[in-house]
Amino acid sequence: VIHLEPAVVSAVGKRAILRRRDFHKYPELAWLEYRTASLVARHLRDCGFDLKLGQEVLRADARSGLPDQVELQHAYHKALEEGGDPEFLPLFKDGFTAVVGVLTGAQPGPTIAIRVDMDALPVPEAEVPGHAPHREGFRSCRNGVMHACGHDVHTAVGLGLAEVLAASREQLRGTVKLIFQPGEEGGRGAEPMVAAGVVDDVDCFIAMHIGLGLPSSTLYPVVEGWLASAKFDAHFQGQAAHAAFRPDEGKNALLAAAQAALGLHSISRHHAGSSRVNAGVLRAGTGRNVIADTALLQAEVRGANHEVQQFMENRSQEVIRGAAQLHGVDVEIKMVGRTTTAACDLPLAKHIAQAASRTEGLRVDLSPIIVGASEDATFFMRRVQERGGQATYVGFGTELAGGHHTPSFDIDEADIPKAIEALVRAVLELSHQVR
Amino acid sequence: VIHLEPAVVSAVGKRAILRRRDFHKYPELAWLEYRTASLVARHLRDCGFDLKLGQEVLRADARSGLPDQVELQHAYHKALEEGGDPEFLPLFKDGFTAVVGVLTGAQPGPTIAIRVDMDALPVPEAEVPGHAPHREGFRSCRNGVMHACGHDVHTAVGLGLAEVLAASREQLRGTVKLIFQPGEEGGRGAEPMVAAGVVDDVDCFIAMHIGLGLPSSTLYPVVEGWLASAKFDAHFQGQAAHAAFRPDEGKNALLAAAQAALGLHSISRHHAGSSRVNAGVLRAGTGRNVIADTALLQAEVRGANHEVQQFMENRSQEVIRGAAQLHGVDVEIKMVGRTTTAACDLPLAKHIAQAASRTEGLRVDLSPIIVGASEDATFFMRRVQERGGQATYVGFGTELAGGHHTPSFDIDEADIPKAIEALVRAVLELSHQVR
Amino acid sequence: VIHLEPAVVSAVGKRAILRRRDFHKYPELAWLEYRTASLVARHLRDCGFDLKLGQEVLRADARSGLPDQVELQHAYHKALEEGGDPEFLPLFKDGFTAVVGVLTGAQPGPTIAIRVDMDALPVPEAEVPGHAPHREGFRSCRNGVMHACGHDVHTAVGLGLAEVLAASREQLRGTVKLIFQPGEEGGRGAEPMVAAGVVDDVDCFIAMHIGLGLPSSTLYPVVEGWLASAKFDAHFQGQAAHAAFRPDEGKNALLAAAQAALGLHSISRHHAGSSRVNAGVLRAGTGRNVIADTALLQAEVRGANHEVQQFMENRSQEVIRGAAQLHGVDVEIKMVGRTTTAACDLPLAKHIAQAASRTEGLRVDLSPIIVGASEDATFFMRRVQERGGQATYVGFGTELAGGHHTPSFDIDEADIPKAIEALVRAVLELSHQVR
Amino acid sequence: VIHLEPAVVSAVGKRAILRRRDFHKYPELAWLEYRTASLVARHLRDCGFDLKLGQEVLRADARSGLPDQVELQHAYHKALEEGGDPEFLPLFKDGFTAVVGVLTGAQPGPTIAIRVDMDALPVPEAEVPGHAPHREGFRSCRNGVMHACGHDVHTAVGLGLAEVLAASREQLRGTVKLIFQPGEEGGRGAEPMVAAGVVDDVDCFIAMHIGLGLPSSTLYPVVEGWLASAKFDAHFQGQAAHAAFRPDEGKNALLAAAQAALGLHSISRHHAGSSRVNAGVLRAGTGRNVIADTALLQAEVRGANHEVQQFMENRSQEVIRGAAQLHGVDVEIKMVGRTTTAACDLPLAKHIAQAASRTEGLRVDLSPIIVGASEDATFFMRRVQERGGQATYVGFGTELAGGHHTPSFDIDEADIPKAIEALVRAVLELSHQVR
Repeated sequence: VIHLEPAVVSAVGKRAILRRRDFHKYPELAWLEYRTASLVARHLRDCGFDLKLGQEVLRADARSGLPDQVELQHAYHKALEEGGDPEFLPLFKDGFTAVVGVLTGAQPGPTIAIRVDMDALPVPEAEVPGHAPHREGFRSCRNGVMHACGHDVHTAVGLGLAEVLAASREQLRGTVKLIFQPGEEGGRGAEPMVAAGVVDDVDCFIAMHIGLGLPSSTLYPVVEGWLASAKFDAHFQGQAAHAAFRPDEGKNALLAAAQAALGLHSISRHHAGSSRVNAGVLRAGTGRNVIADTALLQAEVRGANHEVQQFMENRSQEVIRGAAQLHGVDVEIKMVGRTTTAACDLPLAKHIAQAASRTEGLRVDLSPIIVGASEDATFFMRRVQERGGQATYVGFGTELAGGHHTPSFDIDEADIPKAIEALVRAVLELSHQVR
Repeated sequence: VIHLEPAVVSAVGKRAILRRRDFHKYPELAWLEYRTASLVARHLRDCGFDLKLGQEVLRADARSGLPDQVELQHAYHKALEEGGDPEFLPLFKDGFTAVVGVLTGAQPGPTIAIRVDMDALPVPEAEVPGHAPHREGFRSCRNGVMHACGHDVHTAVGLGLAEVLAASREQLRGTVKLIFQPGEEGGRGAEPMVAAGVVDDVDCFIAMHIGLGLPSSTLYPVVEGWLASAKFDAHFQGQAAHAAFRPDEGKNALLAAAQAALGLHSISRHHAGSSRVNAGVLRAGTGRNVIADTALLQAEVRGANHEVQQFMENRSQEVIRGAAQLHGVDVEIKMVGRTTTAACDLPLAKHIAQAASRTEGLRVDLSPIIVGASEDATFFMRRVQERGGQATYVGFGTELAGGHHTPSFDIDEADIPKAIEALVRAVLELSHQVR
Repeated sequence: VIHLEPAVVSAVGKRAILRRRDFHKYPELAWLEYRTASLVARHLRDCGFDLKLGQEVLRADARSGLPDQVELQHAYHKALEEGGDPEFLPLFKDGFTAVVGVLTGAQPGPTIAIRVDMDALPVPEAEVPGHAPHREGFRSCRNGVMHACGHDVHTAVGLGLAEVLAASREQLRGTVKLIFQPGEEGGRGAEPMVAAGVVDDVDCFIAMHIGLGLPSSTLYPVVEGWLASAKFDAHFQGQAAHAAFRPDEGKNALLAAAQAALGLHSISRHHAGSSRVNAGVLRAGTGRNVIADTALLQAEVRGANHEVQQFMENRSQEVIRGAAQLHGVDVEIKMVGRTTTAACDLPLAKHIAQAASRTEGLRVDLSPIIVGASEDATFFMRRVQERGGQATYVGFGTELAGGHHTPSFDIDEADIPKAIEALVRAVLELSHQVR
Repeated sequence: VIHLEPAVVSAVGKRAILRRRDFHKYPELAWLEYRTASLVARHLRDCGFDLKLGQEVLRADARSGLPDQVELQHAYHKALEEGGDPEFLPLFKDGFTAVVGVLTGAQPGPTIAIRVDMDALPVPEAEVPGHAPHREGFRSCRNGVMHACGHDVHTAVGLGLAEVLAASREQLRGTVKLIFQPGEEGGRGAEPMVAAGVVDDVDCFIAMHIGLGLPSSTLYPVVEGWLASAKFDAHFQGQAAHAAFRPDEGKNALLAAAQAALGLHSISRHHAGSSRVNAGVLRAGTGRNVIADTALLQAEVRGANHEVQQFMENRSQEVIRGAAQLHGVDVEIKMVGRTTTAACDLPLAKHIAQAASRTEGLRVDLSPIIVGASEDATFFMRRVQERGGQATYVGFGTELAGGHHTPSFDIDEADIPKAIEALVRAVLELSHQVR
């Protein structure tokens, strides 16, 4: 039976809160998590983990939605200036910001993986007295960028987990893999890590998320109902012309994009399950008196299962190409992210529930939580399950100051130590019980 | 100098009014002018004209917008029953309802052609006391079909002209060709007659129209500004599906046609001249709870010149095909009519003006009249001009009881004899003066 | 324990098949079920039922989607000519084609109601050798109208049920109400019957349907998942104008309707459940060269629950009115039908299952069947449940020759006697067991 | 008869070229012409003109399309730093960047006004060897802003005109008003100057423009066919919502704007003359997975006359409001500019032609030039004509290196002295001949 030293757990918990605040202050968007990844790598190395970094754990050609070179370099230099670890930073260059830490237990046993995501969102953080990060001085120092989905918390919990596991190595059997993933937002980071084989040897896979509207201090080991999704940009290219002199010589990219947006939203419902579609961003044209020659439409479709998702994706292509033809313009569609669906393995969930329930102050509830959003951890889950392993998605309830993806998003930091302890217990007990 | 016997002219005028009433009572739509054409042929033969009929003067493969076999046969039998000439009728079978009458003068001279159109419109005729055809008992006996554009008048004037010319043969030089054209509405009859070479030997060509909003009892020998036009039907073919059970299995022809209609109306203005576009009829779907599998869109585009017209036509094809693709359905576009532009030859117009001005009670005005509609007489005009001849379009003003193409359309019959006399004078004087 | 005389049941079953063929041959659309209703009334009276007819059981102002006077009268006279019962017909005049038959048992007991629908569909019936009604000589004699959903079967089963129950009166406790409803198609007949109080005293309510894709000779007493729906016609009124002369004077009803159709299909998905939308029929315009002044759009929306349905309905109104405003035309929206959702009461379903399972050759399956279509029997179910009664919807599986609402729809007539017997058993046993 | 000292004219011409280069290097957008206006004022004062500045000559509430306070202040400070005249600058603060200089002649006579526009365009200037301003070192130093329509030339010509007129005062009768107008681009500056009464006392009004595709070194005193226009921004305000969690809670401003853009382009042609419409810029939404809550659509409509223009404007309002209603969002439409139509007075044009033709190296052509663009000098022309004066629009042909409003636009500077001399001659001779 597992024994955790209360003093260690408590000290680690306190440090995790400080680390979370540091990550919160320096949020980094998808594929730009240079500073974060370098500090994660440093910490894991210091705890005695073996490291796999960058291109080793991310297949280059499976990445999508990459920022352009200017942004990649700008963010890299900012990371260098603002406390990124200079030893590790070069390994992440050009958007290879993934870290996998491996810790081998004292005896043989299963391979257990925990997925942690590190990226922030293009949301401007609240700057009001009621918002704790502002009040306490760790509000985002990057304009318009914010950890508004709790990935700062996930990263800090992951590092705390590493610390306690390292200190409890003699109780660990088998192997633990801590997977620090870039670009969860937009469904970009998991697929290339899966493609690099990161979870091909995993027996038990756990993804986790804080918040999700779940009751405070409660752990839910069965979070399901993730929608498959595809995210894409349509770049329309027409021809400019003076709107009064030569309107007929224009090829109107603005109208093509407008048509596409309306067309996307009119894609039929599907009998086999829920679907979603959104044309969220449209930017077209340069001047009122010029026929717009370019337009960018950013959109996404989702489906409750593969059939629905495929239908939405196929129809969206048809719609966009038809709209382009209707207005006589060219269009290029770029996929920039993707997620799939996955089911949780109940036996694994039950093991986790049992272990986690020994954490003081934490309630455990095995009811399945059905979310209607998307997550690319589903790619890891599917791969593990396809290869015979088990996988689940764990939610930690906490009191939220504001909704996910909003400027006032915040969590109750008192739940951070509980999350760490629960995960430590789950990992250690699983290492004894599985296989 | 020309001499016309007043008694002859007066008697012919009276008979023309009676004939007009007969044609008015039995209106026939485009390609179905069986009764009309057979009576025209009989009359011309009786006057001593040589005849060319049916396929001789209409190239079969240049016809467009033909009714289907059922309608063609139904109309043919109706014509047989209701007074069509049984000798001539068989020559017009299957929609070859054109007549050309040729009269050779006493001496050599130019070839002068007059174009007369014979078809009626799908307009239900007024049935109120104020409407003269109703009051006088010659209202259309065909439900929903009406001579609402005056082609009954044109035909009667053409027959009166034949009668007087035949009686004045000794004053005629050269040759007169009376061209009785089917299917002017929708721009269908002129092109196949031109293709059959009907005007290839013509030196002077005169098209004529009554009404046009011109002042009463005034002849305008320069009517211009006809828009080139193309008329087409788009047949969309999708796939039906139950709207609640399997909406995703449908391919929505209704939405494709709706999209096409909106897209057509959003085709850009052209810098080089006026354009027009109209999606005038849309019929789609069979039931509220079924994804519509078929849709028919009837549309037209117009342009002040060939460049504009071509632009409108090309873009309309792009729009319709794009709309079909956007909704994943098939589409077939059928051209059903076409007109072109033409300019009037001023020297010819002046000759006509001079001759016509000798008609008592008729004012002549050489000011150019600019219309914004379409006419397929323009095909005759272009062909004549291309081959070195002259052409013009003559308008006869009359008091209209209601606008063209409306149920209460009617003319002042007192203008019929004047139109005949003016044309007789124009033809005879031209036969002396041209060449 | 219930005893049924096999000879009676067998004879009734045979007669029911003949009656079904008669109803099949003379299908009548919603609100025009004159002949059917009059024969139903005659039969129920002959069996000894008390009758409530016409306006007594249909609240006039709660009816929707009524045909116009011409159709109402035409259908009435046809019914008179083709075998409708002259005694009862006058009571149904003007579209009051509902019948309720009441049979009182030998002892006190519950009130049990069975809902049967009588209307046919605007579907042209197949005329091929493989189609039994054609082969056997009872194909629809009304062009374009067909019992393509089995309501002829329902009516015949209802009359068979009446016959056996009348013969078994001594075993019946309480009261049986047989509700013969008009206008189920389009969701028109149930609401005004509910409004007239027809089920206000009912303890057990059973709606039934044959087919539904269920396995042959199986009874399912729990059929659920009916979508709430609203059906409506949008009449757009613009202004005609010549498309070339005065395009600016037109107010384009065709474009408004096209816009509305596209707008309806782009109404957002709803988080709280499935939704559906369809613009199934669009008719606009009179001629290619005229700006269309009128357009009719026939559409429907559906939702898995009241919240979703309400959202779809509100948005569809907004869409239609916005489309009208966008094109400067007027619009009137007429509701022509409506259904709601309802849940089945399991205790009632279990009673039915137990009783029905005694029918030879009939399998019973309590698994809930989830349909994705709409039914206005849901209004009866809700009312009964609101007033403390129980309700359920029973499906009888049969082999279908073609899908519901298709020209080749047909059932296996051998299932008709089984359905009658099952319902008789259910009613009689319920009359003993309930309360 | 007028005598001009060749040495003076030549020296002024050379200085004007240098001034043009200075203005070219420091281009300023509409309402931000601080530096330009202050240097104009300084020069006019130095030449002995009486000045009216800022609010005196611009009615505040008649201005439209003003930049926001941040831009206004930023541009003001830039002007201060980069050579604006510190004495005059404060008078132009907050976008009151207009100057009127008045010179009184030696004897009584008419009041003659010349309109010069000063604003630049949001066009990035070419940076290639072939582009003279780049090669010669006076390329725009403001990123993305360029004198791409020749207003730098106009301003320099206006100052040269002032200089020569001041030196020729004894030959001048009556009064000369030099009107230096801000914000011609977008049709913003003329209306508020007219509203301030700037031309209420003017007898002869001359607007001028260089380039326009006219033959080199030719003056055209009759430039007509300006389209009336209205420019407007539509700000759509909806409601954001997560596109997967709560799509139904969103109010989609992106779709409303897309609908409006398509709707604008589908506004009907008008029978009474040319029209134009363009939705040139659309910006909507913040993220792919969020229902867009805001959208901005920048558009314009034009018409060959007031009737057409009014039709386009009314319909565009209807379209935008309809689109907003269709998608359940709010919209505010802000007019940001406007132009009208105007005709040239031939007598005035002939006087100008006669005088200008004495300029060596300048050809004069009285043929009317028909442009298809818009100009707000038309407001000045109309006002002058309404009050009994005469007005015309003069074009100076020059060789253009690139089209108007393109990055490579440039003129032949050798035409600057000719333009000055032609205008001086026109003004002085008019001052003798008019009234």
